[in-house]
Amino acid sequence: MSERTLIESFNIGIKKGCDDSVCFSIPDNSCVSIVTTKNKFAAAPVILSRKHINLAKPKYILVNSGNANACTGQQGINNALLCMKNLSKKFQCKKENILMFSTGIIGKQLPIQKMTNLINKKTFKFKSTWKSAAKAIMTTDSTIKSIKKSFLVDNKKITINAICKGAGMIEPNMATMLSFIEIDAKIPRSKLNSILKKSVDKSFNSISVDGDMSTNDSVVLIANGKNQINFSKNSNIIKIEKNILDICQNLSKKIISDGEGATKIITIYIKGSKSYKEAKKIAYSISNSNLIKTAMFGSDPNWGRIIARLGSIENINLIPEKVIMKINGHNTFSRGMQDKLCDLKLLNKSMKRREISIEILLNLGKYDFSMITSDLTTKYVSINSEYTS
Amino acid sequence: MSERTLIESFNIGIKKGCDDSVCFSIPDNSCVSIVTTKNKFAAAPVILSRKHINLAKPKYILVNSGNANACTGQQGINNALLCMKNLSKKFQCKKENILMFSTGIIGKQLPIQKMTNLINKKTFKFKSTWKSAAKAIMTTDSTIKSIKKSFLVDNKKITINAICKGAGMIEPNMATMLSFIEIDAKIPRSKLNSILKKSVDKSFNSISVDGDMSTNDSVVLIANGKNQINFSKNSNIIKIEKNILDICQNLSKKIISDGEGATKIITIYIKGSKSYKEAKKIAYSISNSNLIKTAMFGSDPNWGRIIARLGSIENINLIPEKVIMKINGHNTFSRGMQDKLCDLKLLNKSMKRREISIEILLNLGKYDFSMITSDLTTKYVSINSEYTS
Repeated sequence: MSERTLIESFNIGIKKGCDDSVCFSIPDNSCVSIVTTKNKFAAAPVILSRKHINLAKPKYILVNSGNANACTGQQGINNALLCMKNLSKKFQCKKENILMFSTGIIGKQLPIQKMTNLINKKTFKFKSTWKSAAKAIMTTDSTIKSIKKSFLVDNKKITINAICKGAGMIEPNMATMLSFIEIDAKIPRSKLNSILKKSVDKSFNSISVDGDMSTNDSVVLIANGKNQINFSKNSNIIKIEKNILDICQNLSKKIISDGEGATKIITIYIKGSKSYKEAKKIAYSISNSNLIKTAMFGSDPNWGRIIARLGSIENINLIPEKVIMKINGHNTFSRGMQDKLCDLKLLNKSMKRREISIEILLNLGKYDFSMITSDLTTKYVSINSEYTS
Repeated sequence: MSERTLIESFNIGIKKGCDDSVCFSIPDNSCVSIVTTKNKFAAAPVILSRKHINLAKPKYILVNSGNANACTGQQGINNALLCMKNLSKKFQCKKENILMFSTGIIGKQLPIQKMTNLINKKTFKFKSTWKSAAKAIMTTDSTIKSIKKSFLVDNKKITINAICKGAGMIEPNMATMLSFIEIDAKIPRSKLNSILKKSVDKSFNSISVDGDMSTNDSVVLIANGKNQINFSKNSNIIKIEKNILDICQNLSKKIISDGEGATKIITIYIKGSKSYKEAKKIAYSISNSNLIKTAMFGSDPNWGRIIARLGSIENINLIPEKVIMKINGHNTFSRGMQDKLCDLKLLNKSMKRREISIEILLNLGKYDFSMITSDLTTKYVSINSEYTS
């Protein structure tokens, strides 16, 4: 058995002429943590994987693209289970040792006969790379999204391999976000769960175009056990957490950048809120405003739209006179009106950039939240209206 | 004094070459009720009007278009107050007898010198029509929005005159919704308030493109006292309420139809929810999904997007297996998957219509909510990104 996760990219019979599936073989010493969608119509493989990870140690992960197996009823569950059963027979383990994740079109049944035939016939060699896995799980992505990073913990070199897919949540029938991350360290499951949850909150859950999770969104973190970490040293925990977060934030930025039709990356900072929850609520509301997103597309520093949106959010603490807003670092709004020293010419010029920042200081408390979003463009509308069921 | 509200449309010096203002003179026997925006950055005239209506009987209402006097700080308040003071001197009443409403660009100060000069010099004849008033308060509206309706209560003919402005909330710097309604009846203030609140909830507050109210949104209902109504008869109350609601719903449909770039009017019905609040939350969430709105633009019955959105709404009661969805009357989704009897060909054909209905049955309770929205089009994005501050 290898010390690291082994990978096989292959064609399982959903797409034509390219790999559409990946099988990960997880080392024995591993500990695995997953965060899955909160969507109430979670896809069949997500429902089963959540169950399996609580019943047994994950040994293999099967991922397919091209078909989400979501909104497919009992038959969808049966189909995913059949894949898992056939795989477990092949690898001589229990079906509960298998996790499965799918991405692609919603509401269509898997071509299950083809898939099980292929699984049964196939010889798995596990010689593929993380990059080939990243490619096999792509749907509308225009680029392969993978990161490799190493750092030292107590002089031991710790490597992280990570891949993801997702193109800005703007093709929901195809728009699942999936990510698989492996770290060369031994981390107990409870700690691993907490690290992953925290990182996802501040990365994949802090990017959004629509404010909702798809039926299939999942992030998997594998700690393969290769290096022992002394967790009684707080600095070690902090280092591991920081690096996992860093990887997740990098991957999410890749997703936003790949948003179809997107021409801008907009970071929204909410500062000085009375609670973390409120800061998050405000950031989401601002980032989901079409009027703000279209203004950004037009390179228009339309602060009136941002303030109007801020004022319309229900049940939040807000004192209009205390609000200060900066766009691209320029003081734009204060004391309930346009900032008297605001240099509109400079502000206008700065809006031509690809990366825009909107900073809202509420001056009411100590809680901050930031998130990344993209602009709303004519191309976005074309892409999403031209798709035909 | 006239039995009915008198109207003067005129130019107050904000726009060039057309009327940009209206003054309403309200009969002595009247009772007036207002519903104003919940936006925390409410415009200066809104803040003052709320105060005045609680201090004195409204005798005159001044409305201007072209400038919202919102996000204008203390100076904005002073300017609105100055208009009211000058008008009250002219009409020999207290400034508290004046209400004021504004619509137009956010963040710019009123041309106050011009305005007060004009008010002081002008001779008011009050000979204008409701239609000319509707025209004078237009901003990005492409059509005049006015309705006149009569009905019988205890054999007395009751007439309602109503106007509004607003073009689908899609040009927020211009996108205030204002409405003025007069009914030929004597209705005590507490009853009038409750009638207006209920009607607005089921009309102007049930249309939305962005889910938020502008800084200036206001609806004014004048009961001019012309006809005594026997309110001890329940059927009379119901009749009055029904007709006011009907007027409000008609006006709001006019606003949605006039949404810039809109090609579809989509009615979303949420049925069988555990509470009214939840039904409303779901309807808003569905109606604000860009993925659903772009699909509608493309005449695509993309039920996967609707179900994915439904599933992503936090903190609502939902049992996926119980959900049934109909699009344009066709059973589309049931038992967690595409309805087995769904005729996709017929469904696809029906999507070409201008009026689309999406009906979601939760089968959990007795509460319903419906709302109207428009589609998201490339024209919407063009209009809203081309605007320059």
